[in-house]
Amino acid sequence: MAVWTIAVLLTVFQVTSGDIGGPTMICTPTMICTSTSTPRVAFTLTRSSDLGPVSSTADLTVTFDHVLTDVGGSFADVTNPSVFNCQHPGVYQFSFSALSQTERSAFMQLMKNGQFQLAMWAGQSSNYGSGSNTAVLELEQGDRVWLAIWRPDIYALHSNTNRYISFTGVLLYST
Amino acid sequence: MAVWTIAVLLTVFQVTSGDIGGPTMICTPTMICTSTSTPRVAFTLTRSSDLGPVSSTADLTVTFDHVLTDVGGSFADVTNPSVFNCQHPGVYQFSFSALSQTERSAFMQLMKNGQFQLAMWAGQSSNYGSGSNTAVLELEQGDRVWLAIWRPDIYALHSNTNRYISFTGVLLYST
Amino acid sequence: MAVWTIAVLLTVFQVTSGDIGGPTMICTPTMICTSTSTPRVAFTLTRSSDLGPVSSTADLTVTFDHVLTDVGGSFADVTNPSVFNCQHPGVYQFSFSALSQTERSAFMQLMKNGQFQLAMWAGQSSNYGSGSNTAVLELEQGDRVWLAIWRPDIYALHSNTNRYISFTGVLLYST
Repeated sequence: MAVWTIAVLLTVFQVTSGDIGGPTMICTPTMICTSTSTPRVAFTLTRSSDLGPVSSTADLTVTFDHVLTDVGGSFADVTNPSVFNCQHPGVYQFSFSALSQTERSAFMQLMKNGQFQLAMWAGQSSNYGSGSNTAVLELEQGDRVWLAIWRPDIYALHSNTNRYISFTGVLLYST
Repeated sequence: MAVWTIAVLLTVFQVTSGDIGGPTMICTPTMICTSTSTPRVAFTLTRSSDLGPVSSTADLTVTFDHVLTDVGGSFADVTNPSVFNCQHPGVYQFSFSALSQTERSAFMQLMKNGQFQLAMWAGQSSNYGSGSNTAVLELEQGDRVWLAIWRPDIYALHSNTNRYISFTGVLLYST
Repeated sequence: MAVWTIAVLLTVFQVTSGDIGGPTMICTPTMICTSTSTPRVAFTLTRSSDLGPVSSTADLTVTFDHVLTDVGGSFADVTNPSVFNCQHPGVYQFSFSALSQTERSAFMQLMKNGQFQLAMWAGQSSNYGSGSNTAVLELEQGDRVWLAIWRPDIYALHSNTNRYISFTGVLLYST
């Protein structure tokens, strides 16, 4: 959504009074229309290897090894990106997908500032179960959003170079 | 998409005629730039319990028990929201996810004004199957969009406090 | 994002010099505000039948038999649409879903100009496995995006009139 600033620079008229008749005048209001550029944020992170299981029962933040797209530079120069740090307050949509490993199910939570939002389940199938979910969140500057495996001693993710594990976020509306 | 109304209020120039030389004039066109605010609609509903099976074979509308996000107030003051009533005509994207129960598959349809759009399947796995789908729809004011279980005597959904069942809608473009 | 062109047409002031006092002047700057209309692209394609397996091992492009929505006319007059040809450069989000057939798994890749982006897996379940994925891509005019089954002699998709197979693309930001 474009935020427009319109500045009107008024020049005082120059009037040259002629001898007869009337003055000759040139009116030169100068208008400058500038757009405060709208922030654009749209990223997709992918992961190309398994994650877990681990021995700890504490939430395991999902890290990614590839930045497929990063409009807005949210993950510029970040190795193994994981947490989206909101720089532009607004309404965001997040989508995420993952597979389960052959011997277990996958359970991945969408977190905002440490608070659970919703989850994805990929049930154990004859090979790899698949799961996805999507949510819209309103974010303030400084809010942090990430994916976490709950009970990573039990649940784990599968991926390979096919990038089955993904985390996408887009800014829908600036606020 | 911002709809801009630019009103130019022209003031008649005040001219003070001096004695000698010419008149001193100040031109003061006042410009007012107002933005007819763009509607913003973005919601995510979640459900934290099973739905079905039931004895009826009639389509069962999916109800939700939690409003995770509701930009635009589509579900303000609604208990057990289910149907999205379009107030702002435009192009919307809808995404939805659900799990199957352990002993059956899940089959959920995206409906618009009672007409089938597309469906999601979550096949029976060794525990809970998972499914998702996404569609873009053009809506007029008054159009209604919801999710329904077909043959709810056969198909049913699983969820719990992890909010596996979700329904997200966002306004992409106003029309 | 609206691109605004504001043209200010200045009319030279008409000044009527009166007898006594001063001239009466009317300043009439005419302002024209025009919006270069923002492109809108949002489509959902669906498929209502199985695809594969086939005897070839070469990537099999997924074709669709129904255009659910096509804002912007990307697939106008196209029979069995499959490839999205980008006409409006920008940042796009793509989401896709499919089912596996009963005796095999489904494996579908998101391709851009022949280059792999990410994939969806739908593992064999007791009936039909389900899978989805989402990605944001930056596209130039002329870029082509499609879905392909890798090793279609092994992997294949299931659908029927419930339109489980879908391909959605939306333009988030013009560039």
